[in-house]
Amino acid sequence: MAAGTFYVVGVGPGDPELLTMRAVRVIQNAPVVAYFCRHDKKGHARTIADRYIRPTTRELRLAYPFTTELSVADPAYHTRMHAFYDKSAQDISSILTNGQDVVLLCEGDPFLYGSAMYLFDRLCSTFKTDVTPGITAMSGCWAQARQPMTHGDDVLCVLPATLPEPELENWLERADAAVVMKIGRNMPKLQRALARSGRLDDAQYVERGTQENGFSHPVTDCAEKAPYFSLVLVPGRKGVR
Amino acid sequence: MAAGTFYVVGVGPGDPELLTMRAVRVIQNAPVVAYFCRHDKKGHARTIADRYIRPTTRELRLAYPFTTELSVADPAYHTRMHAFYDKSAQDISSILTNGQDVVLLCEGDPFLYGSAMYLFDRLCSTFKTDVTPGITAMSGCWAQARQPMTHGDDVLCVLPATLPEPELENWLERADAAVVMKIGRNMPKLQRALARSGRLDDAQYVERGTQENGFSHPVTDCAEKAPYFSLVLVPGRKGVR
Repeated sequence: MAAGTFYVVGVGPGDPELLTMRAVRVIQNAPVVAYFCRHDKKGHARTIADRYIRPTTRELRLAYPFTTELSVADPAYHTRMHAFYDKSAQDISSILTNGQDVVLLCEGDPFLYGSAMYLFDRLCSTFKTDVTPGITAMSGCWAQARQPMTHGDDVLCVLPATLPEPELENWLERADAAVVMKIGRNMPKLQRALARSGRLDDAQYVERGTQENGFSHPVTDCAEKAPYFSLVLVPGRKGVR
Repeated sequence: MAAGTFYVVGVGPGDPELLTMRAVRVIQNAPVVAYFCRHDKKGHARTIADRYIRPTTRELRLAYPFTTELSVADPAYHTRMHAFYDKSAQDISSILTNGQDVVLLCEGDPFLYGSAMYLFDRLCSTFKTDVTPGITAMSGCWAQARQPMTHGDDVLCVLPATLPEPELENWLERADAAVVMKIGRNMPKLQRALARSGRLDDAQYVERGTQENGFSHPVTDCAEKAPYFSLVLVPGRKGVR
C-alpha cells in the first residue's frame, strides 16, 4: 500500500475568507486534519478553517504540553517541546503509513515562525509532502491598518520583540521598514527602542488583524501589554512619491 | 450619486489557485478591473486572475511608460513615473466618481513592493478603499523550495539585490534569515556577498515560484543572470531542533 501525503496548509491570519482556493481544496479533500492547540482550546488554525472541514473528516488535535507556564529560557522548555514534536510527528506518521493523507492546518504561513516546520523537518525525508503558502499575519495586519510598507529599495526587517533592547533599537534604526512580532509584555521595551531609534511617531499598532474586532492605532496610544495577536508596523522610507 | 469603492487586491505570486476566497469574490463582483502592465504585454496580475474575471467586466490597462529602458538612477525615471502614477490615479478617480467600483489587481501582496501603493496613496483620502492581502512572492517561493525559513526568535530581512555590495554583505551577515529580491544582473555581486558573509552554502535560488515550470536549486549552481521572477532564500539559524 502506498503511504499518504503530508499536506502543510497555511490558513492565514484569521479571516476565513483569507484562505486560498488551493488551501480550501486541500482541506475539503482531507481524510484527516491535524492542528496545534492549547489543551483547553479549540485551536486558532482549526477555528479559521472551520467552514471548510467536512463532517466526515477525522481530526487529530496536537495539544501543546504547556504554553506560557514554562519560560523559553528554561532548558526543560526545549526538552519537552522536542519530545512533543517527536510524538506529534509519530502520530501523523502512523496515519500516513496506513495510506491516508494528513492535512496540517497552520495559522498564517507555515514556514514563517510556524510550529508546522518542526513536523515538516521530521517527516519530509520519509513521506511525500506538499506545502500551501498562507497569508502572513503581517500582510493581514498592514491591509487592516491600510498601511503601505515597502517601496523601491526599502529593506524590510521582521523582528521579535523578545530581542534585547539595544539589539531591537539597532535593528529599528537600520531597517527602512520593520514589523515587530511577539509583543506581549515587551511593549514598554519596544516603545523605548522605537523612540530612541526615531521611529516611534510612524509606528502603528495592529491588534487581531483581519479578525472580527481587529483594529489599529498609533503605538504612542498603546497600553503596557499587548495580546498575542498583535503586531507593530513601521512603514518604509523610500520610493517615488 | 455615491462614489465607488477602490479595491486593491493581491493575486499572489503566480498560481491562480493561490488567490484567496476574498480576492476571488471581489474580482467576480467587479464592474471594472485595473492592472499595471508593459505596453506590449497582457500584464502578470491580469494573467494570474484570468479565470475569475467575468466577460462583462470592463478592463483598464495601466501601461508603464517604460520598464528597463530608463535607469532608476536617471532623474527622468522619477519624473516620468510620478506623472504616470498621477495619470493612472486620475483615470481610476473618474470611474469612482461616476459611482462604479474599481478593483486594482496586484501581483503578490499589494503593500509589499507593489506599484499599487502609489495609487493607494493618491486615492485613499478621497475615496473609500478596501485592501485584500495576497500571498507574497517570498511565501510562494519558500513553499516551492520546501524551505522552512524562520524559527523561534529569528530575525528575517528582506533585501533588494540592488543594494551596494558592502551593505548587502553586512545585512546577510547580521540577518538570521534573509530573502533577496530584484536579482537580475546583480547575481555575481549577490554570490560574492553571500560567500563573504558565510551564507552561500545555505542559500537557495527559486525561479518562477508557484508558476508552471517553477524550480529551485542551490545558489552555487546559478548562472550569472537571473530573470525578474526569481528570489534567493537564506534560511534562519535558530529554534528547537
